[in-house]
Amino acid sequence: MINNRRTIRKYSARPIEGELLERILEEAERTQTMGNLQLYSVVVTRSEEMKQRLAPAHFNQPMVTEAPVVLTICADFNRTSSWCKERKAVPGYDNFLSFINAASDALLFTQTLSCLAEANGLGVCYLGTTVYMPEMIIDVLKLPKLVMPIATLTIGYPAEIPEQTDRLPLASIVHDEFYHDYTSQDIDRYYGVKEALPENKKFVEINNKETLAQIFTDIRYTKKDNEAMSEGFLSALRKQGFLH
Amino acid sequence: MINNRRTIRKYSARPIEGELLERILEEAERTQTMGNLQLYSVVVTRSEEMKQRLAPAHFNQPMVTEAPVVLTICADFNRTSSWCKERKAVPGYDNFLSFINAASDALLFTQTLSCLAEANGLGVCYLGTTVYMPEMIIDVLKLPKLVMPIATLTIGYPAEIPEQTDRLPLASIVHDEFYHDYTSQDIDRYYGVKEALPENKKFVEINNKETLAQIFTDIRYTKKDNEAMSEGFLSALRKQGFLH
Repeated sequence: MINNRRTIRKYSARPIEGELLERILEEAERTQTMGNLQLYSVVVTRSEEMKQRLAPAHFNQPMVTEAPVVLTICADFNRTSSWCKERKAVPGYDNFLSFINAASDALLFTQTLSCLAEANGLGVCYLGTTVYMPEMIIDVLKLPKLVMPIATLTIGYPAEIPEQTDRLPLASIVHDEFYHDYTSQDIDRYYGVKEALPENKKFVEINNKETLAQIFTDIRYTKKDNEAMSEGFLSALRKQGFLH
Repeated sequence: MINNRRTIRKYSARPIEGELLERILEEAERTQTMGNLQLYSVVVTRSEEMKQRLAPAHFNQPMVTEAPVVLTICADFNRTSSWCKERKAVPGYDNFLSFINAASDALLFTQTLSCLAEANGLGVCYLGTTVYMPEMIIDVLKLPKLVMPIATLTIGYPAEIPEQTDRLPLASIVHDEFYHDYTSQDIDRYYGVKEALPENKKFVEINNKETLAQIFTDIRYTKKDNEAMSEGFLSALRKQGFLH
């Protein structure tokens, strides 16, 4: 199953049965979670209007408005804190570690859900843009303090079977007993196949770059953008009460 | 499969076949990843000595030394940055957003791996302690700048079949179109079953507490500990070059 997976960005008009969505969400709840607190929430977007409002936060990628269902998975210490307050307990979760704990819970849940969706014939696209402009998503979805959007999945029945993308050789990501830093020779060995792929060579050429790595540093993920978005994310963390 | 999952903390003496471990690590590489950069690394601990050295960072939980294999999954922008430097590209990934991107990649990979291990008859325990004292793990595993430990899995063949733990009702974690904050009545409805479980009632009693929530706020995850560990984590992020 996992060997055949590919990200699906085009969906058929067939809606997702409510029962199916509920079942996979419920099954994904079996994911391990800190102290069994389940530090996440899922906002389900099905309405046209809400998809249109979410789209700009995701750079108007067409999946957001074209998928039958958009799921925004949030790190959530609000529910647990509300429980504490109702039960004569004083919650102490307005801090950075608690954000990391809740974000971890949310991402583990997200990935189980993603695997279950695929195992049930659905196609999924994970939107990394969720963490680019979190304040916009916070506003649209009315997220209260101690809730941060952390992942988005667009889901629907696939209307495409794209080519699988390449992956680095296993040796490049695995370290025996301790981290062995990469030599020039390691880099050549591990990135050679990726760099030699016709689509990547073409990509370099049409962008007038010298190397594939420059596509990432100069175009796709620039230092300037990363630094601006780091500030935005930290500011959202402060606004949501996870950082002082 | 997922419906039967439980965390496994006791392992049989049977070692994990090297081939099996390699196969599931390689299959987990199919997990979605930002720009197909695979912003993670896995340190595999099999030696007795390294397990002993890692154990204190995990509060000496016995799984660390008793499991045949301990995997520390790290957010890694070092490998990608090394690649850039070798290819006349100037990496701009020494910032907070890049940490979030790499941590997300690492956690999604971790959860696919966890599901695959379980599907292959192995038992897994996710150690949340990884983010409690990251500097200790950084030292032991010799993690360079732009690498942060983010998750640990202890893995082995199960020597126990523990009871499954409870989960909150699905309605408590799912929000329709936007976040609906929790009323007193919601909290009662969603937490009632958990609070009524005999093991939880007993837990409250033997700890001389009034409510289950107090077990979390006063004993398991206190504000004081969370604040101290927040400082430790932020300081590790600075040391690793992800925060200024």
